[in-house]
Amino acid sequence: MRLNDIGEEKAISSFIEAIQTGGCKRKDMLAGPGEDDCAVVLIEGEKYLLSSDLLTRTKHFPKEMSYWQMGWSLAAVNFSDIASMGGTPLFLTVSIAIPNVELKKLLELGYGLRDCATEFGAKIVGGDLNHHSELVIDASVFGKSPEKTLRRKNAQVGDYVCVTGELGSAYLGVLAILDQIQVDKEVKEKAFKALFEPYPRVKEGIKLSKGSATSAIDCSDGLWKSLYHICSNSNVGAKIESNKLPVDDSILKASIENEIPLKNLVGKGSDYELLFTTPNEDDVRKVGGYIIGKITEDKEINLDGKNINYKSTSYNHFE
Amino acid sequence: MRLNDIGEEKAISSFIEAIQTGGCKRKDMLAGPGEDDCAVVLIEGEKYLLSSDLLTRTKHFPKEMSYWQMGWSLAAVNFSDIASMGGTPLFLTVSIAIPNVELKKLLELGYGLRDCATEFGAKIVGGDLNHHSELVIDASVFGKSPEKTLRRKNAQVGDYVCVTGELGSAYLGVLAILDQIQVDKEVKEKAFKALFEPYPRVKEGIKLSKGSATSAIDCSDGLWKSLYHICSNSNVGAKIESNKLPVDDSILKASIENEIPLKNLVGKGSDYELLFTTPNEDDVRKVGGYIIGKITEDKEINLDGKNINYKSTSYNHFE
Repeated sequence: MRLNDIGEEKAISSFIEAIQTGGCKRKDMLAGPGEDDCAVVLIEGEKYLLSSDLLTRTKHFPKEMSYWQMGWSLAAVNFSDIASMGGTPLFLTVSIAIPNVELKKLLELGYGLRDCATEFGAKIVGGDLNHHSELVIDASVFGKSPEKTLRRKNAQVGDYVCVTGELGSAYLGVLAILDQIQVDKEVKEKAFKALFEPYPRVKEGIKLSKGSATSAIDCSDGLWKSLYHICSNSNVGAKIESNKLPVDDSILKASIENEIPLKNLVGKGSDYELLFTTPNEDDVRKVGGYIIGKITEDKEINLDGKNINYKSTSYNHFE
Repeated sequence: MRLNDIGEEKAISSFIEAIQTGGCKRKDMLAGPGEDDCAVVLIEGEKYLLSSDLLTRTKHFPKEMSYWQMGWSLAAVNFSDIASMGGTPLFLTVSIAIPNVELKKLLELGYGLRDCATEFGAKIVGGDLNHHSELVIDASVFGKSPEKTLRRKNAQVGDYVCVTGELGSAYLGVLAILDQIQVDKEVKEKAFKALFEPYPRVKEGIKLSKGSATSAIDCSDGLWKSLYHICSNSNVGAKIESNKLPVDDSILKASIENEIPLKNLVGKGSDYELLFTTPNEDDVRKVGGYIIGKITEDKEINLDGKNINYKSTSYNHFE
């Protein structure tokens, strides 16, 4: 049985089973592999967050992307994991496997990492550099957890389902790169910006952890898969209304002209907004977010009254 | 100017310059990129260690190596960085970019990681899994620093130069894989074991940090480069005696038969022993180590009275 046959999710869950060192949880690990966007560990009695994200040239870096943007993205996607738990990024280690490129490209990648780290108050403390046929970069982030760590698992029936910002640009960007759609220059630039320079919602995550938010995750695997994670971990369902999904006007117009179903636009891209639940509208206002639906008792994920199959509307690394 | 032209060291130092976020050090970072095997950071007033190491199929995993050994190695080389500072590994994040292999190979890799983590009391807390044309695996380790962190920079004139165990097996293993030497089965197995299943000297590092050791590093880049790092950071030199270099009898015999100069045998391989300096012979005895020379005032690295050019007797990732 090869990885392609069993798919990403099963591969990950089997792997997580393989690496369990005992069966019982260690007292200093409050959340482990696969449970949330970060692991939660206790250090000197305080909660800290650990996570890593790897990006490859083939999968994540189209030719339109600059080395600066690759570096920025690597830090940003890691910080987004911290943001989704309400945390503050502190330290980053970076490992780079890189072909024999011009030194200035490696340095541009470094500037991108540096600029993103600076933007979010984190520090690159170490790493590794190797020669490789294709660019593969990995970072591991260490951050401080807030007093109330935002998890995937505590969404409550009746909570509002919310996002911190507009969705859909990233997937439109992917389709533009693949030349599968016709869009004008301005829209393309907007979509590329969302795709190439994700802006992790660190400040929003911190605010949410101080409020009444009951759960959070980032939308990096698309809205539906992220929502599925919250629902399955919280043992609830969700009802989403398509007319409440926040999509930039020009992005929406372009998606309609190109006959991209809205559920794909928000489901198949890596938008780095936070998806969260809260019983309190104030939380949504404080982070400039949008209410897109409600948490329900039945376990379905539902869009305008129809069940959503999140697997067919999400991205799968091994398909 | 491409990376191959400028070489690994210059590429790394230029990159480190590029990622500096301010110029001034942050108060909670006591050692940063390029200074030591790990970064040293302050968390809740206590010292912790962070490091990452990336391994690729082409560079690090010959076809003779099992997936279990690859997983073991990834954890081991990261733990070795912690060991060289006298620390204790606590948590590991693991990122995997892997082709469409059989699931059982991925799981074997997981078992190798798990077994090494268990051996050294650490826990795998999270990671990332991606599809990729060639296996690239990266891990980041988080560990506790001892009260006296072992650094590269405090070796003193007159200190003994020591290693925790025998050297040379790893390089003999490399040459056997490349079919550049003739060795019998037993020697080959011994060499492969050293190369494929490095055993980080965590316990030895902890003991050394409690004694009088003045500096330490692991020998993963070969003896001479590691010694160069200690000497240049400590602003000293070293005098090594070849008859004191500890090499297993059968490995030494095979290297002589194949006309491998001793300085290459110990200099070009990745032996995961610790190289350390101490004024106190007791430290050496406590870790079952060997004295191989002395720290000197003049800045040269010297073997039997002759200057060693560490660059020509070490491994370079970009040459």
